[in-house]
Amino acid sequence: MAESPFDPTSHPHRRLNPLTNEYTLVSPHRMKRPWQGQTEPPQPADLPQYDSKCYLCPGNQRAGGAQNPDYEQIYVFENDYAAVLPPPGPEAPSAPHPLLKAEPAQGGCDVLTFHRRHDLTLARLSLEDVGEVIEEWCKIYEKRGKQEGINYVQIFENKGAMMGCSNPHPHGQVWSLSTVPTLPATELANLVKYSLSKPTPSDAPRGPKGQPCLLCEYAHFEVGVPLEEGRVVHKNEHWVALVPWWAIWPFEILLLPYKRHVPSILHLNPDEKVSFADALSVVTKRYDNLFSCSFAYSMGIHQRPLPSLTLDIANDDDDIAHLHLHFAPPLLRSASIRKFLVGFELMAEPQRDLTAEQAAVRLRALSATHYLDAQTTDGKLHGF
Amino acid sequence: MAESPFDPTSHPHRRLNPLTNEYTLVSPHRMKRPWQGQTEPPQPADLPQYDSKCYLCPGNQRAGGAQNPDYEQIYVFENDYAAVLPPPGPEAPSAPHPLLKAEPAQGGCDVLTFHRRHDLTLARLSLEDVGEVIEEWCKIYEKRGKQEGINYVQIFENKGAMMGCSNPHPHGQVWSLSTVPTLPATELANLVKYSLSKPTPSDAPRGPKGQPCLLCEYAHFEVGVPLEEGRVVHKNEHWVALVPWWAIWPFEILLLPYKRHVPSILHLNPDEKVSFADALSVVTKRYDNLFSCSFAYSMGIHQRPLPSLTLDIANDDDDIAHLHLHFAPPLLRSASIRKFLVGFELMAEPQRDLTAEQAAVRLRALSATHYLDAQTTDGKLHGF
Ligand SMILES: [Zn+2]
Ligand SMILES: [Zn+2]
Repeated sequence: MAESPFDPTSHPHRRLNPLTNEYTLVSPHRMKRPWQGQTEPPQPADLPQYDSKCYLCPGNQRAGGAQNPDYEQIYVFENDYAAVLPPPGPEAPSAPHPLLKAEPAQGGCDVLTFHRRHDLTLARLSLEDVGEVIEEWCKIYEKRGKQEGINYVQIFENKGAMMGCSNPHPHGQVWSLSTVPTLPATELANLVKYSLSKPTPSDAPRGPKGQPCLLCEYAHFEVGVPLEEGRVVHKNEHWVALVPWWAIWPFEILLLPYKRHVPSILHLNPDEKVSFADALSVVTKRYDNLFSCSFAYSMGIHQRPLPSLTLDIANDDDDIAHLHLHFAPPLLRSASIRKFLVGFELMAEPQRDLTAEQAAVRLRALSATHYLDAQTTDGKLHGF
Repeated sequence: MAESPFDPTSHPHRRLNPLTNEYTLVSPHRMKRPWQGQTEPPQPADLPQYDSKCYLCPGNQRAGGAQNPDYEQIYVFENDYAAVLPPPGPEAPSAPHPLLKAEPAQGGCDVLTFHRRHDLTLARLSLEDVGEVIEEWCKIYEKRGKQEGINYVQIFENKGAMMGCSNPHPHGQVWSLSTVPTLPATELANLVKYSLSKPTPSDAPRGPKGQPCLLCEYAHFEVGVPLEEGRVVHKNEHWVALVPWWAIWPFEILLLPYKRHVPSILHLNPDEKVSFADALSVVTKRYDNLFSCSFAYSMGIHQRPLPSLTLDIANDDDDIAHLHLHFAPPLLRSASIRKFLVGFELMAEPQRDLTAEQAAVRLRALSATHYLDAQTTDGKLHGF
């Protein structure tokens, strides 16, 4: 091995995630190993538009006893079994030992259905309907973020039985908390650190007060790499979807605006929102098309911990945050073969075989028309 | 909520892991929520002692083409599809951009079967046979750790189909690498930081040069808490198994020697090894007994990155490492209901409902006799 020059598609290496300062071990030479692991049961196909047993369908009763209204499109309600309780909460007791630290946590957990139809997903909504979801995210981020005692709002979606989500009804969640959680706090700290550093000058957009923004700089670099060599999956007027250099999940995607520094979804102008809906739609459609299945993932929106009081950038220190979405999908080789983050990965560091560039090639090659809406050559609809 | 004093069994709170500086959100009030998530298929019961299709059984052929010898007890071989290739490797090329950092990684991956019998697990081996596994870990840690170009040795076991491991034949792995991976590097950095701090004096054992050891101090505190209030699951002459204050997984266990500072498995004296075998056996038996199934988990041994040149403590800076094992088991409520680390947990921070203390109560109450070896009152063997 020592004689041949370094080749990222054949030599094992580690890549650094500058948002977290954590590495991923990449083992591209291992792509051909036979599969000896666990396989997943097939996802249910042919879902009904309404399911009387679904706790998210219009008019149905939830496990907690409440009844959903006969809503038209999007419905938001407080989770009947929220992970946190409303502020204020009791003071923390003194720690029994300095190594046993605890702090109280308060907040609220919301559920939002993306559509009344049980059988749809983000990938199969019209662009207008995706736009409605984005508007709802803006509303809830603003409303929760302004509540007394709330210091962080996390919007996310967890989709698919292999992610522990057994209800296919399209929906997301928003957890609003009294503290900034570990991962976004770490990312924010690294964005601040970068903004105070003196990186090599570039013509990337800049953050508040002209400070360098790690994500503006990174996205700007990626969109400048020739498409066939790079990690970009989809780029439109304002947004880019890419497999990040440091990706952990086989087909992980980072989705973010690249033309200017954008601290939160409330900073998006109408054009940027249209681009956002397009990008969300293309990413989720390509995901479904990859293995012709409803693609499981966890998605999270990272942005300013709370909405800004003004929409001018450089308003306060939190404006160094740059809006981005992480997609963490587990599928690896087919609709039934997934990656597990276990063993060495849980005890040491994440590991992948397929490189980020190889994943981007696969995702770029896919149609932006959903496989269930595309006719096959024999005139039948694609299915399972 | 504001009126009642803080109660860790009913008020949501966050707990800090001082080894990683990461928090876990604890939501004990949510223990009674109905289960609406995914369920797991039952594990296969009644395994044969020998399976002709198993690539780990004695005499069988592996997917790579090699044939296992007709080994007696433990068999070690290099993984046919190792995640890394042997050192030396090529130099790293210069990064295409300062945010796109990569470094080469080399090493070797070993597989070791714990026993020739296909149907056994650590939980069902005799104490002598568990002792043999410990001796093999010592040998492989020493051998790999002395190889040119190796700077870290990670011993681990990944067990159970729900962890992606479809082969029930009892086995573990050892990945030896040219670099220290993210998690052990972070833990080591925090152990070093603690050793240089001035914690409140205690009569806990101390690390090299009399410096404070975070894990000696933590374990010493935990064994001093009255059993019924604390997190200890099992304690013997030299080792303690406990559900750590900051546990992420429902029945997570930290297993470590508590009587003196022990940097690695090679520092263990014969008595401490006997205690280690007992502790491993009790922990894995109780795990199986919790839901009467072969309990899935990932286990990892953290210790000095490499074996020491002498077995005196205070030999070099790495002796601040304190030997410990992490058990990360996904099962939550039954043999078919597991926890998923997804959604908010993947995008923000881990969350749990059951407190560490509640988990310890459950694990302490279990028999140390394996359910498959115990007779039920009607004279039949327990099974599925
Ligand atoms: Zn982020
Ligand atoms: Zn550790």
